[in-house]
Amino acid sequence: MIDADHKFMSMALDEAHKAAERDEVPIGAVVVHGGRVIARGHNLTETLTDVTAHAEMQAITAAADNLGGKYLTGCTLYVTVEPCLMCAGALGWSQISRVVYGATDEKRGYHTLCNNPFHKKTTVDGGVMAKECGQLMTDFFKKKR
Amino acid sequence: MIDADHKFMSMALDEAHKAAERDEVPIGAVVVHGGRVIARGHNLTETLTDVTAHAEMQAITAAADNLGGKYLTGCTLYVTVEPCLMCAGALGWSQISRVVYGATDEKRGYHTLCNNPFHKKTTVDGGVMAKECGQLMTDFFKKKR
Repeated sequence: MIDADHKFMSMALDEAHKAAERDEVPIGAVVVHGGRVIARGHNLTETLTDVTAHAEMQAITAAADNLGGKYLTGCTLYVTVEPCLMCAGALGWSQISRVVYGATDEKRGYHTLCNNPFHKKTTVDGGVMAKECGQLMTDFFKKKR
Repeated sequence: MIDADHKFMSMALDEAHKAAERDEVPIGAVVVHGGRVIARGHNLTETLTDVTAHAEMQAITAAADNLGGKYLTGCTLYVTVEPCLMCAGALGWSQISRVVYGATDEKRGYHTLCNNPFHKKTTVDGGVMAKECGQLMTDFFKKKR
């Protein structure tokens, strides 16, 4: 793991903690462009009563708004948990250059339903700070039971 | 094809025409609950500079807002073109009861990348007014070339 990945995934994890504080499934994301965070998001599906309000969706929309263009070429999205099909599809449309995720989602992660939903030029790295990212999810669902 | 499907797909097609008027890829959607249209949407990716602003995504968010709950059980979504992976994933999360689409999308439709992204209780019907829905897309892209 390179230092920058650790730094930005920690920021995504901070976002996930914000979701946890609102009793939302604790997933967070940041988008980085030129070494700078240009967008942040955390899951708000309960707060907004909207199944589309995942951390990645909000970060994608905010990043495009920041850049003034809908494509995220040259950007990296860090997200604490493997994207679901919806978010992977959105990342595909965005033509983002790199996706870095933490914990794998064996139940709803995109890999359970399809192989490569991303743009052909997108690189994907999973497992960055997987333990910390996954632990937050485990703790959340344990509390719910 | 049942009469109701024709009626609601015509409304989705009206939405698609609104997108065409804005020079957007002409796709429209409506959500029906208890025989009543509770949400409408058309593609606004260029206008909003946002790859996530597909017709379905907007209709899903608006329908949940109308119902006051995030799940669309008991609802049917009519969309003029087969949903992409992102929209199919969102429809999956929504637990919508039925999805009806018009034209098939051989390039970016969900079926090109995965088999069944929907909730296990969701029924899916394609090909309703496929000719009209597809023609609008063909005309749009012919004009763009």
